[in-house]
Amino acid sequence: MFLTSPASLPYYPRMQIGRPGAALITMQDVWDYYRADLQGVDLQIQKHVDSDVPLINQVALYILTSGGKRIRPLLLMISARLSGYDAPGDQAVMLASAVEYIHAATLLHDDVLDEAALRRGKNPAHALWGNRATILVGDYLYTKAVCLAVQLGLLEVDSILAHACRIMAEGEALQLLHCGDLTLTDEDYLKIVECKTAALLSAACRLGGVISGASWEEKEALARFGRDLGIAYQVADDTLDYVADQGRLGKALGKDLSEGKITLPLLHLLRTAGAAERKLVETVIREGHATPDQLREILDFMQEYGSIVYAMSVARQHIAVAQQTLEEFEPSTHREALSAVAEYVISRDH
Amino acid sequence: MFLTSPASLPYYPRMQIGRPGAALITMQDVWDYYRADLQGVDLQIQKHVDSDVPLINQVALYILTSGGKRIRPLLLMISARLSGYDAPGDQAVMLASAVEYIHAATLLHDDVLDEAALRRGKNPAHALWGNRATILVGDYLYTKAVCLAVQLGLLEVDSILAHACRIMAEGEALQLLHCGDLTLTDEDYLKIVECKTAALLSAACRLGGVISGASWEEKEALARFGRDLGIAYQVADDTLDYVADQGRLGKALGKDLSEGKITLPLLHLLRTAGAAERKLVETVIREGHATPDQLREILDFMQEYGSIVYAMSVARQHIAVAQQTLEEFEPSTHREALSAVAEYVISRDH
Repeated sequence: MFLTSPASLPYYPRMQIGRPGAALITMQDVWDYYRADLQGVDLQIQKHVDSDVPLINQVALYILTSGGKRIRPLLLMISARLSGYDAPGDQAVMLASAVEYIHAATLLHDDVLDEAALRRGKNPAHALWGNRATILVGDYLYTKAVCLAVQLGLLEVDSILAHACRIMAEGEALQLLHCGDLTLTDEDYLKIVECKTAALLSAACRLGGVISGASWEEKEALARFGRDLGIAYQVADDTLDYVADQGRLGKALGKDLSEGKITLPLLHLLRTAGAAERKLVETVIREGHATPDQLREILDFMQEYGSIVYAMSVARQHIAVAQQTLEEFEPSTHREALSAVAEYVISRDH
Repeated sequence: MFLTSPASLPYYPRMQIGRPGAALITMQDVWDYYRADLQGVDLQIQKHVDSDVPLINQVALYILTSGGKRIRPLLLMISARLSGYDAPGDQAVMLASAVEYIHAATLLHDDVLDEAALRRGKNPAHALWGNRATILVGDYLYTKAVCLAVQLGLLEVDSILAHACRIMAEGEALQLLHCGDLTLTDEDYLKIVECKTAALLSAACRLGGVISGASWEEKEALARFGRDLGIAYQVADDTLDYVADQGRLGKALGKDLSEGKITLPLLHLLRTAGAAERKLVETVIREGHATPDQLREILDFMQEYGSIVYAMSVARQHIAVAQQTLEEFEPSTHREALSAVAEYVISRDH
């Protein structure tokens, strides 16, 4: 539904900020406002890396403290507070750390799957500890997350997490299946993105609602907010792969291209560009490698044909829908915060 | 405590069979007796491989129908019936299929970890579909198992499964950590075995008790039975790696040796043999490869120094303890069946 040209889409106004309560305009405001919550989560994250096997703790702490921004725990904590959670209890904090464990587990398996050259600008885990340890510690972190969640004794929590994890695995498999597949449609691509990325962000928001005793409608709204935010997050990330400067995102430019990962800007280029441009892309995908000249040419084509602008507009539209969903809640500082996070995840700064 | 020489251990009589009810003497008797239960489990196992992603179903069904004996589902079903479960309800069957999914997930990850040349005599999954699909479908099956378990709405079930999976991941990591480590002790080895193999078998038995409303004491006894059976199972399997004929077990002879996997017969050989024999083992482990002559020599040494007999006696002692544990239950056909399964798992025929 967001695949038509941006011009034909309804206009969603940016949310107004500066309502009663602290005005949270920038992401830095948000980090500052929820600092105590996130410090609590950080303590839990490190406290529960308590395996008897030193190798596990070493690899787990490496990935858990390698500069991740804790977006998922942040969303869970804000969602909980939006729904009235104000006890400094451990439940939300423990759940937030479980969600971050799951995220870290997927990063570890992705490291192996992608043979990632760079992960947040640091060495990938598999280059330091080998594929075996990386896969196993991924398994460990995932099972540890389930253990933490189960301890809360809330079946709804277990169900949400298990469902999200299954969807994520399906998304990764779907992506693999379509590796190098130039017949992929935008719908296929968005389905992959929804599964592999949005499912966990959506679950994090919904869990915030669960833990604070939110109504069914509120939990549904939080889940929808998280899903749209998550889709936008991944679309933006995939698009910035063709424009970001390497220093800031710590990712190699055009990495997805060499890996045969077909993303939205590439799909746009393939259907709007001429036969020659299409042939170039096909050659690069087939050979699994782009020379610097080929990469530069493709990047130029993407600018020329508006592929970057198009893909970012799709991301932005999902953010607009996510922010529209927030209107279902009363105005509050926490609602402002979620809106600010939504803006942030499609910026270049994360 | 089972590490002293067999002679110093108490004698546990073999269980008497032929008590009232059907006499289940051989494993074939057991298969026949629980055929309907296992057919139900098989149907569930195949029914729930229902991903939208065809690749997932393909790889999952490959591993799930590659000739596994369904020992874990069998133990769960018998344990449930031993504790009074006689409803043909779906709960035990669904849980049994979840346990088999977890087992299959570990097989898939093991395939990648071990770069296994043969899995039950067939091509390993990773050789057919590549490492990526194999890791991902492992993840999928694990999450699917958790989803199935969560559907039952029993927190105790979720907790047992999550705990078992965490312990299994720790066991695999512990094994990796000690790969090629000739300073490993028997205790270390048995700890690895208990984690990576016995935890799930123990959980399967305990879950049978949970699903049938067994008492705390009964559930504990079932868990202990499963743990001892599981330790024996793995010790026997590791030992048969040095004696089994390839056709029957579908495993390459001495495979563990080339992979640096230090198991009980090797530990026994290292501490009982002379310096020359020890040097040979060290060389093979260091080089990660045994020539046919070296392998033959090591196998001969193991026979000569009684390493095979010793290791199998440790396995047998654990089976004896497991069977002793069964005495806590009233005599019944189901108790006979568990005893027969215990005998079976250390035989060459599985």
